[in-house]
This record gives sequence, structure tokens and C-alpha cells, in this order.
Amino acid sequence: MPLIDDRLVTLAHGNGGQRGRTLIDEVFARRLANPDLDTTLDAARLVLPPGEVLMTTDGFIVQPLEFPGGTIGSLAVHGTVNDLAVSGADPVYLSLAAFIEEGFAIDRLDRIVASMAEAAAENGVRVACGDLKVLPRGEGSGVTFATTGLGVRRIGLQLGIGEVRPGDMVLVSGPVGDHGTAVLLAREQFGLRGDVRSDAGSVLPLTRAVRDLPGMRFMRDPTRGGLATVCHELADASGATVRLEEDRLPIRAPVRGVCEMLGYDPLYLACEGRVVALADPVCAEAVLAAWRALPTGVEAACVGEIAAGPSEVVLATALGGERLLPPLEDDPLPRIC
Amino acid sequence: MPLIDDRLVTLAHGNGGQRGRTLIDEVFARRLANPDLDTTLDAARLVLPPGEVLMTTDGFIVQPLEFPGGTIGSLAVHGTVNDLAVSGADPVYLSLAAFIEEGFAIDRLDRIVASMAEAAAENGVRVACGDLKVLPRGEGSGVTFATTGLGVRRIGLQLGIGEVRPGDMVLVSGPVGDHGTAVLLAREQFGLRGDVRSDAGSVLPLTRAVRDLPGMRFMRDPTRGGLATVCHELADASGATVRLEEDRLPIRAPVRGVCEMLGYDPLYLACEGRVVALADPVCAEAVLAAWRALPTGVEAACVGEIAAGPSEVVLATALGGERLLPPLEDDPLPRIC
Repeated sequence: MPLIDDRLVTLAHGNGGQRGRTLIDEVFARRLANPDLDTTLDAARLVLPPGEVLMTTDGFIVQPLEFPGGTIGSLAVHGTVNDLAVSGADPVYLSLAAFIEEGFAIDRLDRIVASMAEAAAENGVRVACGDLKVLPRGEGSGVTFATTGLGVRRIGLQLGIGEVRPGDMVLVSGPVGDHGTAVLLAREQFGLRGDVRSDAGSVLPLTRAVRDLPGMRFMRDPTRGGLATVCHELADASGATVRLEEDRLPIRAPVRGVCEMLGYDPLYLACEGRVVALADPVCAEAVLAAWRALPTGVEAACVGEIAAGPSEVVLATALGGERLLPPLEDDPLPRIC
Repeated sequence: MPLIDDRLVTLAHGNGGQRGRTLIDEVFARRLANPDLDTTLDAARLVLPPGEVLMTTDGFIVQPLEFPGGTIGSLAVHGTVNDLAVSGADPVYLSLAAFIEEGFAIDRLDRIVASMAEAAAENGVRVACGDLKVLPRGEGSGVTFATTGLGVRRIGLQLGIGEVRPGDMVLVSGPVGDHGTAVLLAREQFGLRGDVRSDAGSVLPLTRAVRDLPGMRFMRDPTRGGLATVCHELADASGATVRLEEDRLPIRAPVRGVCEMLGYDPLYLACEGRVVALADPVCAEAVLAAWRALPTGVEAACVGEIAAGPSEVVLATALGGERLLPPLEDDPLPRIC
């Protein structure tokens, strides 16, 4: 077999035989090695700490696969860790299903898996099992991943969108829209260059710091659809008005600039390392204090509240007016996560 | 929005907003409904019965998406259930990540998800969480799924490839190569028609019937790479010879015919509803008796043994000769599962 084939993923890597085993061993198992990962097993045995067990799953199709602030590999780990974190859990295990297109460079795959391993280690989460499929050239999409996470939560922790009520404050842990804008710029399809880095990262330190505070109602990471979409979910669940204050919204200047130029609203763009939290007013102060003491929460802000009124999302503008934020309809930016 | 768009998946179904929620509710949540599935949560709370917890994951890229004997939906459930089953566990929960290409017909998606729901119900397994991503037209691949399964196994059950030793018998629960051949014929790329139905299905009744028998060493489902590839794994792990007897191998006549015509070896073609079991000679008799009493095990057979000798796979031919079965190299048949 010519040497060059060994540096590109081929259909033979996906057939369940020796070549696939070598790719799994040399890229995935080597990078993601941990005492619970044994690629010769059909199923991995888990050892879960006491508590409520939580499960979440996500697919990842971001384009480009590498962007300022992350790769599809680190994004997959962070996205799954974050869904567990905002549910009040500590992540423990991950599974990884990888779909790779024939012809993909193994060096590049290795770089992506290395960033995945780094993100897993940073969060204390172990990849327990995996699967590799290869799609024929032209039928795949570079690399896509699906991860499932298991985490454990303290028994009795009361967090949920059903807990939210009028009078609660809407908090965000940092500026919104960075991830969406960074990916958009990395595509270069608009001929723009900019200095925006994705916020993609773990929110676990943020959620650990506040999840047990009395008065904490609910947390969510505002990914696809952004802050505005989380607010619509809050309005639907509470049957009340979510009122955001425009001049309190943390949005970085370059994000604002790019969005103005291209006609996007940063409130609808994905974050991948932020938390939206709902808390009663006393708790809200404590959340902001706790977040601002953390490196990823320095720019945390209270951006609005749940107000008595119809189930809708209202933006109080800096000029004293009000406008309704509509639910997200068309996809402004496909392949964002 | 024109009516026709409502019957095809659009990018907007993948943006995290209202249209995606409607698709999830009306297709996935409706079909897969169970008391543990709440699509408004970031993570689902699980209730696991006592025992060792096992986790497995799989990606599914089969083409065509519907074939005689199953769909990519039922295959995804059966594949994940089967990995848990051959590990000696009872499956309890599944997660589902769905990747759908823009333009896919929602009616067809619904049919696929319905077959998935039927397979889940048949195996007593609940879908606890899911995710939906939409790939732009031309960048996706119809539908691909990734499922992760959690199961629970009796504490102390000793099953593993490391338990296999010379003198053990190699058993198969039914004819081999049916799934690979059925998918191949369903593609119609060879201009052939045939009456081969995939064996895709749950092996849980088969594994439950034999997993606790004394002398049972190891079970595996011979999917990608087929029986021959499982035998290579056995030779590697045991350091001994796997000796198969050609005239004992259950292979259906139409499978044999198609393979002869196209130059495939059925021993390397995927099964999706068979078990390969390794057991000591006394146990082997009990396994065959138990399997033959089940509808999916009527054609169960002892097809060979682990023999002292070098680590290789040998086929004793019907004519009294012997030939080495090489490890699988190129992919004979991509997108088989």
C-alpha cells in the first residue's frame, strides 16, 4: 500500500478490521487514554460516584473544524460537559462516535483529537467508549462527532426552568455572541478579518461556584439560537415577560461591529462558554460576586428580569424605547456547533 | 413559508429555535415518548437498576437507509442494544444524536424514527435524551445517527475475550453474511435482485438465555468485518489458532450465490443480529440447546474451536484441506451499518 494512503483516512479504516484498529489505537486511544478506556471491549464498565445520574448527548458539525479558540474536538467535549454543568452535575464519562470522510488527513485528525483530550482532562471527564465510521469521499462532511456525557448531581438539587418566576433576575456570565462571530469570521466567506476569539470552553467552574446557592432557579448555556432563544424558552416556561436591558448586555465591540456590518443580531448568535442563570434578587448578587472572582466570569452581568406580563421577550433599548425580540426563525448561521 | 418546506427538513430546523423544537416534538419525542424523555432539559435524570453499569456507543451510516429487514433507525437501536447484550448486560437507556441533510423528507424521517421506536420498545430500552443537527444540502449524507447505550450487568459476571483458551468451542447463533448481502442487494448497484433479508435484530433473547451458563467465556456480535474478523480478534487475544470447519458454517444459499457471483467472502460480511460465543465443550452443548429453542437461534451451530498453535485463523475446507483466513484489509462494502 503506498505510503500516502497511510496519512489519509481511507474506507478501509472504517471496515472493522486491522487498519481501523490501528487508527483507533494510534490516534483516539493514545490521545484519550484513561484507565476506563479499553478499545477491545463492546461496552465499558463504569464506576459512578454516588448521586443522581444525568445523561446528555450532542452532535457537532462546526465549520471550519478549527477556529480561534477551539476545534470541533474541544467543542464536543465542552458542549457536552456544559450541558451537564448547567444541569448542576459534575461530568464523569463521555462516549465518542466519530464520522470521518474518506481522504481526511490523519495529522489533522490527530490535532483535533489532541484538543479533545486536553478539554477532557481539564474537566476531569473520561472517554469510556468510542466508535469510528468512515464515509465515502463526497458523502461525508469532513469530521462530525457525537458525544454523550454522564454526570452526577447532588441528590435533591432543585434547578429547572419550571422554578423560574416573576421577579427573578437574568444573569449572563460574560459577553454574548463571541463563538458565532469567531466561527463566521474563520469561514472567510464574507472577506472579513477580525480579532474575535470564540468563548468556547468549560462552564463547569462557573456552575460549581453557584449551583448550591439558595435562590438559584435555573441555568442554561446559550448555544444555538443564543441568549434570545434561551429567553424565549424562559418566557414559554414561566408564562411571563422576559425583559432585557440593552445597555446592560455585555457584547464585545468587534462582535457588535461584525454583526452590524452583516446584519446579524448578537443576541441570536451562539455562545459556547457562557451561562445564563435565573436567580432571585438576593441570590443574583451572590452569583455575580462568585462569577466575577473567576477568570471566565469577570464580565458577568445582570441583563434583565422576569416581569409580570404576557409570555414574550422585550428589549428595553438604551434610548428608553422597547422592542419585542421575535423567536428565531431561519437559521442565520448553519454549522456553528 | 411555502407548504412544501414544512415537509422537508430545512437548515432552520437545526438552529436551536422554534422550528427545530417542532420537528423534535412531532417526530422524535412523539415516536420515542417515554416517562424519562423530556426534550426541554439539557440533561436527563436516569434511574438505573442495581448492578454494574456498562456504556457503549455506535455511529450508523448504512446506505440505503431502508433495506429488507430494517432501517437505519432500527439498526441503530439493535446495534447498541446488541453491544450491551453480548457484554452480558440488559440495556436500559439510549441517547440519540441525529444528523440530517437539508432537504430530507420529513415523512421518511418519521418512518425511520418509528422503526427506531419499535426496536426500542421491543428491547425495553428508553431513549433518555437526543440532539438534532442539520447539515447543508450536499454536505450531509441523508441521515446518520449516533447512539449511546447504558445497560446493567449482574455483578461478578465473568465474560471477556481474555477468558478464551484452547479447547473452547466457537458457536454462532445463525447464518452469517445476511445483513451485508441484503444491503448490497438493496443498493441495486450491481443490477442484481435477490431474496435476502437482513438478520438485523436484537440478540438480547440469545444472550440472556446463555450468559450465566458455567463455562461461557465470551460473546460478540460479528458486525463490520464479519465472523472472520471476530476470529482474528480471538486469535490475537488468545495467542492460539482459531480453527473453523467449512462444512459446519451456516450460510444461506442465496448469500452464497451472491457472494460467489461478486467475489465476496460471506465470512467477512456483516451480521447485525447474530452472536458468536466461545464456551467450553460442555457449555457449548447447553448454549446450542438454549439457542435452538429460540426463534432467532434455530440454525445455531458449532463452527470451530480454539486449537493449540500459532495465532491465526484457519479454515478446514470441506474437501479436507486447510487455508488461512487473512485479516480484513480493504473495505469490501462501505456504509454497511
